[in-house]
Amino acid sequence: MKLKPSLILDPNRCKSNIARITQKAKDHGLDFRPHFKTHQSKEVGRWFRNEGINGITVSSVDMAKYFTEDGWSDITIAFPFYSGMIEGLKELESTTKLRLFLNDEQDIQRLNRELNNPFKIYIEIDAGYGRSGVSHNDYGKIEYLMKAAEEGELSKFHGFYIHDGGTYKARSIEEIKSLILDSHSALKTLKERYPDAATSLGDTPSASVLKSFEGIDEITPGNLVFYDWMQVQIGSCRADDVAVWVEVPFAQEISGNKAIVHSGAVHFSKDYILYNERKNFGQVVHPDSEKLIPKENCFLSALSQEHGTVSGFSKESIQENGSIRVLPIHSCLTANLFDKYITPDGKTIEKRVLS
Amino acid sequence: MKLKPSLILDPNRCKSNIARITQKAKDHGLDFRPHFKTHQSKEVGRWFRNEGINGITVSSVDMAKYFTEDGWSDITIAFPFYSGMIEGLKELESTTKLRLFLNDEQDIQRLNRELNNPFKIYIEIDAGYGRSGVSHNDYGKIEYLMKAAEEGELSKFHGFYIHDGGTYKARSIEEIKSLILDSHSALKTLKERYPDAATSLGDTPSASVLKSFEGIDEITPGNLVFYDWMQVQIGSCRADDVAVWVEVPFAQEISGNKAIVHSGAVHFSKDYILYNERKNFGQVVHPDSEKLIPKENCFLSALSQEHGTVSGFSKESIQENGSIRVLPIHSCLTANLFDKYITPDGKTIEKRVLS
Repeated sequence: MKLKPSLILDPNRCKSNIARITQKAKDHGLDFRPHFKTHQSKEVGRWFRNEGINGITVSSVDMAKYFTEDGWSDITIAFPFYSGMIEGLKELESTTKLRLFLNDEQDIQRLNRELNNPFKIYIEIDAGYGRSGVSHNDYGKIEYLMKAAEEGELSKFHGFYIHDGGTYKARSIEEIKSLILDSHSALKTLKERYPDAATSLGDTPSASVLKSFEGIDEITPGNLVFYDWMQVQIGSCRADDVAVWVEVPFAQEISGNKAIVHSGAVHFSKDYILYNERKNFGQVVHPDSEKLIPKENCFLSALSQEHGTVSGFSKESIQENGSIRVLPIHSCLTANLFDKYITPDGKTIEKRVLS
Repeated sequence: MKLKPSLILDPNRCKSNIARITQKAKDHGLDFRPHFKTHQSKEVGRWFRNEGINGITVSSVDMAKYFTEDGWSDITIAFPFYSGMIEGLKELESTTKLRLFLNDEQDIQRLNRELNNPFKIYIEIDAGYGRSGVSHNDYGKIEYLMKAAEEGELSKFHGFYIHDGGTYKARSIEEIKSLILDSHSALKTLKERYPDAATSLGDTPSASVLKSFEGIDEITPGNLVFYDWMQVQIGSCRADDVAVWVEVPFAQEISGNKAIVHSGAVHFSKDYILYNERKNFGQVVHPDSEKLIPKENCFLSALSQEHGTVSGFSKESIQENGSIRVLPIHSCLTANLFDKYITPDGKTIEKRVLS
């Protein structure tokens, strides 16, 4: 049998994840605009549509274009606007209701001059995570931008957006709740101050575990369509909720209960989590089982370009087909490295490939 | 002007790198079988062919197939054989002289039964790096494998192969020379013991800086076609030898002399080197200059999926076209994440895209 590193996507687990969060959003009166950067697949996108989702989030103009080809017409581009995006936006605007991240009033004026169709504006808020956005208490800047948005002929101010990557440091549900406090309270304060503005929260851990969304109008998590071993460790989900894994061909047993497998940084990328102070680049699960059961102390401990080293290896880890099942640490990056998904029963699911 | 993250490949620097190592191999009487996993491009492959190279090295059956389409017919698959490769080898063997890594006598017998054309066998040697291979002083195992290879109707024992990833930890030419000592002396000892066997050394740092290749018959480095910021730090090359960089759209200035750029883990992967105890995911070079001159203290200090943070940022880092030039830390992984190369004068160079 021909064997090579393959990315398996289980539609049942994936659809459960989608249904669960869609229902949760409904229960809390939240607008759910899922981030499609994780799966990058038209077919997976349709599973969201089947749940009644209309608006989506992407991270680049090219990714937006890919999804417009499948009929999506209400898209947030969740990346700070820069002028090199204008041409791409012009190609999108006639068929797509665009929501853009703007943090400069001259850019707002420029887009009002150069585009031809209405668009909505988010002000991205930085509540301390320190990636992009405007500081949450810089009301001068915020109101200046809101004013520029309202004065534009095409633009309309929509609301505030926070993606708080800080929650990815959590290692329990309680830690997620504690780490999101600053961002959550920043959104609540903004909502009180500007009640007409929508407030939007982006990260997967909070969307997964928060029980109160007071002051929040929208959520845009992406990763929870698949989850991954990092999200299990964070406390966002159980191992058996993870909807993707890599089938990793076993190549050679080496000393120290280790094995060489055919899967490296070109299959998993190089995100890791620390496990007993050692880097874990991928978590082995028990072979040929319906349930995804992590194998204690058995993980990818090193990756080079195409080689992986499995620590804590024993021959029982190998499936009948000669491969080992490994949950990715960060499914967004792993999915980005494959040109398709394969379902457990061998069907191909198309996806977007690099660009 | 439309702008997005783009991988620039400078043919002049690249061809110089190829010519330099080809000449060095000739001077030392070495067979140079370059590893093509770094560039994964037929066009770049032809630049090697123009220098008289006939035999190449790849890391998977699929990669071998890609290069056979461009007439390469003498290929080492530098990955431990596993049974899932057989079907692919059958598709290759009629047009391609194959060299394979075997470390199990039953596999050798099986290949002799199932294939139809002669093939050569390397025994991969582990001299302490601990990835794959047979221990360098396990002569029992080595001779058992050599015997199995010679007894096979199709197989012929070719020699010993070491890829010593240990040299990537070096931070000076002297350290490279010291770190390669074990592997080099393992090959020398094997050569003395088995004079008819070829000895092959794989890593880029040693190929770049060693002045004596005593006891070594072949080299198979891959990275030196491009080099990268890690190789500059190791001491393998100068910054101005690096033949690829990413043009990274500038998006937003943020506090602390930082900027948000459009380039993340889906463009660079996540290899890093430590710089003053901080992670450096990509080194900024001065804008719009012929020479590649690193900008002191200015580098990608954080990457998420599509966002990068540049530390030590100042507006003078931005080129006229709105982008920042960044040398990748690990060009093999960065190149793998793009679907094409662009030359400085705007020409497209095709490459292999995921599989």
